Order: sequence, then structure tokens, then C-alpha cells
Amino acid sequence: MSDQNLPIALFDSGVGGLTVLKAVRRLLPAEDILYLGDTARLPYGAKSPETVIRYTLQCAARLVAMKVKCLVVACNTMSAVGLPALRASYPALPVIGVVEPGAAAACRASVSGRIAVIATESTVRGGAYAAAIRRFRPDAEVRSVSCPLFVPLVEEGWFDGPVVEGIASHYLTPLFSSSPAPDCLVLGCTHYPLLQNTIRKVIGDAPCIVDSADTTAAALEAALGKAGIAAPSGRVGTTRFFTTDDALRFARVGSAFLGRPVSLDAVAEIDL
Amino acid sequence: MSDQNLPIALFDSGVGGLTVLKAVRRLLPAEDILYLGDTARLPYGAKSPETVIRYTLQCAARLVAMKVKCLVVACNTMSAVGLPALRASYPALPVIGVVEPGAAAACRASVSGRIAVIATESTVRGGAYAAAIRRFRPDAEVRSVSCPLFVPLVEEGWFDGPVVEGIASHYLTPLFSSSPAPDCLVLGCTHYPLLQNTIRKVIGDAPCIVDSADTTAAALEAALGKAGIAAPSGRVGTTRFFTTDDALRFARVGSAFLGRPVSLDAVAEIDL
Repeated sequence: MSDQNLPIALFDSGVGGLTVLKAVRRLLPAEDILYLGDTARLPYGAKSPETVIRYTLQCAARLVAMKVKCLVVACNTMSAVGLPALRASYPALPVIGVVEPGAAAACRASVSGRIAVIATESTVRGGAYAAAIRRFRPDAEVRSVSCPLFVPLVEEGWFDGPVVEGIASHYLTPLFSSSPAPDCLVLGCTHYPLLQNTIRKVIGDAPCIVDSADTTAAALEAALGKAGIAAPSGRVGTTRFFTTDDALRFARVGSAFLGRPVSLDAVAEIDL
Repeated sequence: MSDQNLPIALFDSGVGGLTVLKAVRRLLPAEDILYLGDTARLPYGAKSPETVIRYTLQCAARLVAMKVKCLVVACNTMSAVGLPALRASYPALPVIGVVEPGAAAACRASVSGRIAVIATESTVRGGAYAAAIRRFRPDAEVRSVSCPLFVPLVEEGWFDGPVVEGIASHYLTPLFSSSPAPDCLVLGCTHYPLLQNTIRKVIGDAPCIVDSADTTAAALEAALGKAGIAAPSGRVGTTRFFTTDDALRFARVGSAFLGRPVSLDAVAEIDL
């Protein structure tokens, strides 16, 4: 089988990466996609770099063993911490993360160059967003804040209401009450787009909000084109899901992220 | 070495079990204790029973390999789901969980027999508290509710304030606004004692609040006595900590649970 007919591997610590899958599916309808969510060990956001790297390599190894043509790391924590180790382990495969595309999107959207980034503790600690933004735009002023309660809120389906606004305000008001305030906010975690309405309420209408989903899909399209391994157009791609914990919960929680029901028939439980 | 000189193994998905360790240390100062927190894979509270059982057995196996005289499961989720598998795997060792002692404490404290239990999703789903309470008191009316955001709140050090009260009220007000209301609340997760002040504010002064720490320590003391393997009194026991993720974070977050600083020298990182 030639590489263009192989599936794309897309993986995440859980269901957050489904926001990226949604964008990839929209842009690249002909591609077959394998999605792995390591739900048994989520969240990765407060784990040490060593642990995140070990788990990232385990996820990738499982998908590579199924024969895939590229790796898409649909998780900010894994992208921020594990990308160099992944590229070193799989030099022959295109490896695409979500941090670089998100940073590029922020640099295009910001007028003033004052960019705020919210992400998990691990992502912020590693400084990957600030570094990537400064590569595109060396004069940028980047302020990063971790929002550890956002992932559990989203996982529990709490997207709005006074409690969620209180938590969002706790994290965001200090970021945006400085003068001059940032004019762009990067949602540096794939869970955060589900809180976008609440975040908008807290920070007001002025700042633009960017996430990595659409730009990561575009980066993937470009990488497949460059390598000459895009699927033939006209066909309809399939999606298969793998989870390391309960398939039923994956399908239930995942549907909110994917924006459509996840069919339980397409979900397999695996052990890493 | 005779069994009485071997250490007690106490383990948890993370740092919550340190509230149990604190009670055990107070009651049994002569015992050596090995504490394992599987922080790399926490929280267990939303994982499937199969995954919780697999992880529970892995934690126990590692500690048993170090030679221990009994197993204390200082985690409600592991106790509620994994105890039968543990007892089957280690028939020669006393195995003590936190659910039975907590249930017994509630039955002693409640006058009316109307008992509310708050715990993680996995613990509530398994029904272990309700079953244990009814074994002690068949006429009890048990109402159980899961509070998925309490663990992340405590892990982040949010113990009080309007946001925490809002979340606590969301979970607890429906439980206690029924008439007649429960007269006893079981904190069925080792993280929850750190929210006790906020919980008290929300439910008022009337209901008693019980947790498993002190009664588990008493159950352990009884089991050691029965087996004739209590450490000789007069000596001063040591405590060693093992964590599957970053030792520094374990020591930092753990100190709030233990009520005293966790010395980094006593913490070793291991892989399961």
C-alpha cells in the first residue's frame, strides 16, 4: 500500500484533541484518520516533562505499529513538551504539533504584538508558546498563565454560568487588566474552545481569541502535500477511535468536542 | 526479619491518602510506613472499574515486592472498586480499605439513619458506600452524589472563597434541601477533608461530617493486633514516600494534606 493510502495518526491525552480532529475532518475529508485518546492517564497538564515524554512516545509507538503516514499531536501539553523526542524517534514521518500553528495564528491576528496565552501548567512551564511566538515575531510581548481548573470543568460539561465565570475571571482578569492590555488571547489547550463564550464574557469584545485547531489542520494539509502523500481526492475518509479507558465515557464526553455524536462502534479500548 | 518489624504499605492515586497517613502516624507512632502515590496517573475517580483494578494491583505489587506486612488502601476509589481483587491476590496479607471504616463511622454518628455520601464518580457508581452502610445498618437511607470538581479544586489549593462555595453548593444543596434532610455527611474521598470548612458553610451546623481517616487508622490498629504483627512500642517509626511523577510537586502539594512539610529527601520517584 502506498503511503498516500495510509491513515493519519492523531492523538491526545483524552478527548480534547477531538476539536483538532473536527477541523482536520472538515479540511481533509478524503483522509483516513486513527484517533487515540489516552483517557486512562489524563490529564497530562500537571505531569512532569519526563512523564509526558514517556507517555507521548507510548501513544505514538502504538499508532505507528498500525502503519500510519504521519503523526499529529493534537494536545498542547504533548506538543509543548514531547515534540523533539517524537521527531527524533520517527525521523521518516512528518510530525505536526499544535503549538507552532497556534503561535503562528496569534502572530497574524495580533496588531500590537501583546499576546496572552492560557494553557496547562506543563505547557506554560515549558515556555513553548512564548518561544514559538517569538520565532515568528521577535518583538512580541507574551504573557502566559495556566488555568488548571478549565480542563476538569470542561470534562464535566460545565461551560458557562456564574461558577465558571468566577473561575475564568480569577485566571483572566489579571491578564487583561494591565495597561496596555493584550489584544490577542491564545487558547493553548484543546479543551478551552468549549469555554469560549464564557472567556469572551470575561475579557470583553476587544481581544481576538485564537485556537490551534484550524491552523493545525492547514499545517497538516501543507505537510501532506509537500511529502506527496495526501489521499486521492474524491474518496470519503474513515475515522477510527482508540481509548485507553472506558469506550462509553469516551463516546459520551467526546461528542461535545467533536460537535457530533461519536459512534460507539468506531471506538476500541486498548491498553498502552 | 519477623513480620512485626516490616513496614505497613499505604497507597493512593496521589496525595489524598496522606490525610489517612496523618491519622495512622498519630495512632501508631512505632510503625514504619511506605506511602505510594500514583500521581502520574491520577485522578482515578473518573476511570473505569477495569482500569482502577489494574492500577490498584500494580501499586500493590510494587509495595509487596518491598516486603510489607499489610496493605492499606488509602483511596476511596481504589477501596470501593479494587478491594476484592486485592484480597484475592494477597490472601496472606491483611488488606484494609477506607470505605468500611468510613461507613461504620457514619452509622455510629447518624441518629436518623439518613446518610449522605459524597465521593468520586467511580466510587458512587460502584455503590460500595451504600452497600457497606446497609451492612451495618440495614434501615439506613443512603443518598450518594459525585463531586468531580472537588479533587481538582483541592489539588490546586482552592479550599474556600465564593467560587469554591458556588461549586460546593451546586453539589450539596440538592442533597440537603430534601425534607427530612440527612443528619450525616460522609466525605467519601480523601481529598474532601480539606474542603470541610466550605462544606460546613454550605450545609449548616446541624449535620455531622465524618471522614475515613481516623476510623481507618483504628481498623488498621485492630488488624495488626489480631494478626500479632504490631511493631514493638517505644520505637519511632519512619515514613518513606514513593511517587510515580515529579517528587517536588508531590512534596509541595502533599504538605497541605499531611499537615506538615513532606521532606524531599524522603520522596523517591518510581515507574509502575
